[in-house]
Amino acid sequence: MILNSNSMIFENNFLSVIDQTKLPHLEHWIKVESLEQMVDIIKDLKVRGAPAIGVSAGLCLAQLTPSMKSQEEYRAAAKRLRDSRPTAVNLMVIIDELVKLSYQENWKNLVVNKAKEFFQEDVKLCQKMGEIGATLIADGDGILHHCNTGGLATAGIGTALGVIKTAHDQGKKIHVYVDETRPLLQGGRLTTYELKKWGIPYTLITDNMAAQIMKEGRVQKIFVGADRIALNGDFANKIGTYSVAVLAHYHKIPMYPVAPYTTIDFSLNEGSTIPIEQRDSDEVRGVKGSFGQVVWAPKDAPTYNPSFDVTPVSLIAGLVTEKGFFSKEDLAQGKLAKIYA
Amino acid sequence: MILNSNSMIFENNFLSVIDQTKLPHLEHWIKVESLEQMVDIIKDLKVRGAPAIGVSAGLCLAQLTPSMKSQEEYRAAAKRLRDSRPTAVNLMVIIDELVKLSYQENWKNLVVNKAKEFFQEDVKLCQKMGEIGATLIADGDGILHHCNTGGLATAGIGTALGVIKTAHDQGKKIHVYVDETRPLLQGGRLTTYELKKWGIPYTLITDNMAAQIMKEGRVQKIFVGADRIALNGDFANKIGTYSVAVLAHYHKIPMYPVAPYTTIDFSLNEGSTIPIEQRDSDEVRGVKGSFGQVVWAPKDAPTYNPSFDVTPVSLIAGLVTEKGFFSKEDLAQGKLAKIYA
Repeated sequence: MILNSNSMIFENNFLSVIDQTKLPHLEHWIKVESLEQMVDIIKDLKVRGAPAIGVSAGLCLAQLTPSMKSQEEYRAAAKRLRDSRPTAVNLMVIIDELVKLSYQENWKNLVVNKAKEFFQEDVKLCQKMGEIGATLIADGDGILHHCNTGGLATAGIGTALGVIKTAHDQGKKIHVYVDETRPLLQGGRLTTYELKKWGIPYTLITDNMAAQIMKEGRVQKIFVGADRIALNGDFANKIGTYSVAVLAHYHKIPMYPVAPYTTIDFSLNEGSTIPIEQRDSDEVRGVKGSFGQVVWAPKDAPTYNPSFDVTPVSLIAGLVTEKGFFSKEDLAQGKLAKIYA
Repeated sequence: MILNSNSMIFENNFLSVIDQTKLPHLEHWIKVESLEQMVDIIKDLKVRGAPAIGVSAGLCLAQLTPSMKSQEEYRAAAKRLRDSRPTAVNLMVIIDELVKLSYQENWKNLVVNKAKEFFQEDVKLCQKMGEIGATLIADGDGILHHCNTGGLATAGIGTALGVIKTAHDQGKKIHVYVDETRPLLQGGRLTTYELKKWGIPYTLITDNMAAQIMKEGRVQKIFVGADRIALNGDFANKIGTYSVAVLAHYHKIPMYPVAPYTTIDFSLNEGSTIPIEQRDSDEVRGVKGSFGQVVWAPKDAPTYNPSFDVTPVSLIAGLVTEKGFFSKEDLAQGKLAKIYA
């Protein structure tokens, strides 16, 4: 059986991943051949998107398992992968599950099967979210999207972009407005690439044009992903999401985060305490990628560069998970905790 | 007499302009030698900023006037300049004034003198706006600024940035948050350059971070320029200004456009009909300048690229002109038309 997605392929127990730093100009698939290589692939953001990182790391471990000489060697390898990125929760959850299996008999087979299951589960979660979210989309809708949440970020069709793809596949005529998503341009580089591939009509804009297209009546719905969700519906996501939410609120346009249960932080009642990672100044002073590197600001320009922001539930219309749609009122009534209890 | 500013020099009846597309890394001055060249300079944004465009176009006309064979030739040249950009009203006001003179005797001298007067007047207008606007700034204020409105955008110290410079020169401790202002990065390239030159503390951010720093309480005032102002206070300005205004309104932060009378369109009662210039897709697909050129989006990515947006007066606290501060209430009562009657 071949496992095949926009971001990874697992065939004959060998993993390949697409190099996302080279997209959209070059579709370069990397055949993973060693543990060291996979750690670098994750560290260098060649694979990105929390679900995609977790699933591909699991499949890498599955690939390496048959030739492992001992459980100790296996667990050391697992730890290397687990430590390759500090923030992606999915990576830790998946690796921890795979490590547990090494204490059972016939562990090698169990690991391989479980890693494949994680892939297939992610595909199904995306499908489910897509079906539920697509019911919110009407024929003719203009949809604003921030960052990248598609097949490149998951093993399936994606979270927010999966919803958009599902609506498109159902024959709904939609048009997607793509926030370029400075500073790292996940929208301009990756979401454009996926929408083009899927044949979904889109228009690329700079982030500061979102308000204008809302004012012009071009946007009926907004779908975004989430990196961490509190039980009341507050959520952390890529920087700029909070800005979109305030603009959506002012223009009375419903906005929906889309994420699977793995993104919910059941220890958090609300989002204000979610820590926000600060990143390097050079990301703001210019851009850098396989497309080249330029610095337009003074080379010593002081910057502020939060990687995420937190959107309060008061600004959104509701949340889509694989278990259903949770309206703002549902979230206020604590339904998220109840459903997942 | 030499006319000398951050953006242009007029000496011995010859105009030079600094190539703003090459800043901040290179200070390259262009000697203007023909009408065609000046039209391209304006179209290519080598000169930009509504007052700077108007004043430099006037001086270009003054330079060309002595060798004009007829008033008809002169008026045709004036029309070419007037049509070089559609949104900024200063260009039209200044050119129209200079064209009127061609119906008088001794018109060539009149034109040259009037064009110089527009330069000198702009210097004084900036000073006046600076003094009036600075009274709105308190010691310790964090100030958000969009685009570039400094010495590069005018013949003087600038409009919104002139207000900020004046407050700084008065000894007020302020910190400026600089929107990079995609797609053309006037904030990241030019405002950083001018603030650094003036020794004013600043922090560069991407446009989609503005909401986050407002939420964090870092911003007490917002000053921006304007390209065209309707009599009720609605105003057109660089794309992204409307977005900042909605965010300011939500966070209850007062926002002030700053502009001289040349920016007021006395034929417009409100702003909804102001024409918005659409620009090239490549500006959104990547960046290009003296710093280099990169394209990160698919090369055929469809884009939307309005150069300006219109902010309704309902979102701002008031307007600063050289004649005083007009509160939102003043504007609603038609005071702008009365003061300038």
